[in-house]
Amino acid sequence: MRSSDQILDTLCGFLRIPSVSTDPAHAADVRRAAEFVRQHLIGSGLSGARLIEHTGNHPLVFGEWLGAEGKPTLLLYGHYDVQPPDPLNEWTTPPFEPAIRNQNIYARGACDDKGQTLILLEAVRRLMDRDGRLPINVKFLIEGEEEVGGEHISALVESKPDFLKADAAVICDTEMFAAGIPTLCVGLRGIVYGELTVTGADHDLHSGVYGGAAPNPIMAIAEILTALKDRDGHILIPRFYDHVVPPSQDELDAWHSLPFDEKEYLKTEVGSTTLTGEPGFSVIERTWARPTVEVHGIRGGFIGEGAKTVIPARAVAKLSMRLVANQDPAECTRLLQEAVAEVCPRGVTAEYKAIHSGAPSLVNTDNEFISKSAAAMAEVFGRKTVFIRSGGSIPITGLFDKHLGIPSVMMGFGLPDDNLHAPNEKFHLPNLYLGIDAMVKYFELLGR
Amino acid sequence: MRSSDQILDTLCGFLRIPSVSTDPAHAADVRRAAEFVRQHLIGSGLSGARLIEHTGNHPLVFGEWLGAEGKPTLLLYGHYDVQPPDPLNEWTTPPFEPAIRNQNIYARGACDDKGQTLILLEAVRRLMDRDGRLPINVKFLIEGEEEVGGEHISALVESKPDFLKADAAVICDTEMFAAGIPTLCVGLRGIVYGELTVTGADHDLHSGVYGGAAPNPIMAIAEILTALKDRDGHILIPRFYDHVVPPSQDELDAWHSLPFDEKEYLKTEVGSTTLTGEPGFSVIERTWARPTVEVHGIRGGFIGEGAKTVIPARAVAKLSMRLVANQDPAECTRLLQEAVAEVCPRGVTAEYKAIHSGAPSLVNTDNEFISKSAAAMAEVFGRKTVFIRSGGSIPITGLFDKHLGIPSVMMGFGLPDDNLHAPNEKFHLPNLYLGIDAMVKYFELLGR
Repeated sequence: MRSSDQILDTLCGFLRIPSVSTDPAHAADVRRAAEFVRQHLIGSGLSGARLIEHTGNHPLVFGEWLGAEGKPTLLLYGHYDVQPPDPLNEWTTPPFEPAIRNQNIYARGACDDKGQTLILLEAVRRLMDRDGRLPINVKFLIEGEEEVGGEHISALVESKPDFLKADAAVICDTEMFAAGIPTLCVGLRGIVYGELTVTGADHDLHSGVYGGAAPNPIMAIAEILTALKDRDGHILIPRFYDHVVPPSQDELDAWHSLPFDEKEYLKTEVGSTTLTGEPGFSVIERTWARPTVEVHGIRGGFIGEGAKTVIPARAVAKLSMRLVANQDPAECTRLLQEAVAEVCPRGVTAEYKAIHSGAPSLVNTDNEFISKSAAAMAEVFGRKTVFIRSGGSIPITGLFDKHLGIPSVMMGFGLPDDNLHAPNEKFHLPNLYLGIDAMVKYFELLGR
Repeated sequence: MRSSDQILDTLCGFLRIPSVSTDPAHAADVRRAAEFVRQHLIGSGLSGARLIEHTGNHPLVFGEWLGAEGKPTLLLYGHYDVQPPDPLNEWTTPPFEPAIRNQNIYARGACDDKGQTLILLEAVRRLMDRDGRLPINVKFLIEGEEEVGGEHISALVESKPDFLKADAAVICDTEMFAAGIPTLCVGLRGIVYGELTVTGADHDLHSGVYGGAAPNPIMAIAEILTALKDRDGHILIPRFYDHVVPPSQDELDAWHSLPFDEKEYLKTEVGSTTLTGEPGFSVIERTWARPTVEVHGIRGGFIGEGAKTVIPARAVAKLSMRLVANQDPAECTRLLQEAVAEVCPRGVTAEYKAIHSGAPSLVNTDNEFISKSAAAMAEVFGRKTVFIRSGGSIPITGLFDKHLGIPSVMMGFGLPDDNLHAPNEKFHLPNLYLGIDAMVKYFELLGR
């Protein structure tokens, strides 16, 4: 059995690869990370492990062990790509030089999702090293485009469902409700992410000479954004809420019994003066069961040092919607585009283009894959497993459901303060080791 | 007498110096441009021409010729600094490599204000070369901080009015109403330029996990901007319009008789689908006699290629007000700051800091400095001189009025399509040569 130090060494090697899938400059690094995963699978005895290529996309890593006749087959999912590390100056230690402080390992991708992907890899490694075989059958499908919309894996799932045939998927890419509480995530928000481009004059103008007569695209973007969502967080896009399914009373009651302290959440996780969002919904409801419209970045005009008195010709905002069951990404994109056209101020043109999207998902919990996962984690962590949802999006769960007809078991070992997508991302090392233990236990329970 | 080619050579040399005063990286270039002006004055026989230094600021260039006893003294003003050239990719030829196309010279600063400053320099050169003396007395005061607020010249004017004592100032930094129409500018808007900074959480957050509960500073900036100005361009800052003086009926009538074609203006100057601004005011009124709130640049969050699902901790906008007589910059800054505090959404903090400001000005036209300037330009251009205002700001005019007690004669030779502060800035070369002729004629008329 590999020691903690060996596993940690492996994780550090994985984290040192800046596999930023969104940035074409890192394409070679992304491929290096894929190869890293493939070599790990080969080291576990999955000698046929290989990269699945798709023109213009980052490769998928596939590997399988199917020697447990009559036993269930799990499709094991993780991703080896990471978010961009900016803003770099806010990292305590460099994002691609893993550093350990207080039992946490700090690096971009530490939690999302290299650390968690390694739980799947090391669980299989341990069983193969110990027994020379697995108690169940597995198919690894580790992608390199999770942070850019997963076009490649989507195409594969849609086009080759037989190749990926399994009884359930295990996704290691979510988080625990709180430290020490084993958690299964059974619902995710969907997403539509895109760019809103507003164009005014055909060139930049002097704001003194033309101010008062010429349209200003930055101001226009502000007018459009405020016409899409009010100050209470209520979305003003017509018919946007039509298909929203509210959580059941049972689910609401369960959420209400979770150990959640809004003041603590504000202070330790968010760190603003107050929380915001729709009145009449709890924080948990607002982030798990309500859709959002959110702007992620904006640029336009002069942003250098000092002053430039210009009315810019153009401004661009990165704008997304998070969706909940049963909102449809394509329909919501259309509604947003119609709303943008409707509220666009005079003198400018506005266009919203989606970059990627994924459907929301709600997992059916009435099966042994969920119940045994909950049991395995409860045993390892010594505490009852809770069922939660997440505000994030893992579009692949919807595709596994739709095209493979299988439930996704989301065993997550991240912590709420792991700074996903933000500077100083970390992963709590005890969760890495307990996660491997829990995954091994889960495979064993399923193989009985 | 220097030939057109010699003058053009001189202008090209001046334009090749990237004297971007707003950018600390160009500090040495700014100084080179100052030295260029000083050498030109020395070449005209103003042997005492010198740089006036002020710690931490760009130097002023001063030179004088006071040999015309009993004749008026003019304070000749221009500036040798230029706006930043961005966005660079929109220039047909590089901004600091002057190129001539269709009798226009293209370069950053071609019109604003190196070409026009050269009119003052070459007019004095021509008279000194020809007569060995001038018909009037002159004091040159050429600054290098016009585009960054003119702190140095303000301090000098305030602290040494005797040193700068003159009967009138001549400012070569405005434009003609239209090609071929000699123009005196008798009113300018003031300005307050600054940064609006909005801060939400103390670090960037994952928009999936926290979207719906965490404040978004970009959205907050949009909410603040739209609460400061409505879609019609009406400013919503309380008491903002209290001291606005409307133009007289005579002035409105004169503006109405100017050759102005709104369709042509939209098409050839602005280049947007429609014009915008306050209903009930003409384009000329809106840009000359009405104040504005304008946003010049904005940055926040992720603006790279592709997608990053982040709620940023901070967003910043460059925001200005253009002011008209008799609005006070300090008072308007305070009103804006109060309004920002009032409309700031919950969950974020917002702060507006002014970077520079200048008072609006309305010139008294009832004196020989104005009437002889109008006569000189009418004679050279062969057409009656029109009196206009400008929407731009030249804060120094207010200071000359306040501290020196002299009128500013704004003889401008730029054209409306000269792309000031924008890519492909140009200066119409015939206006350079006619401008020098008109300036020489003006000095002669005043010296009679």
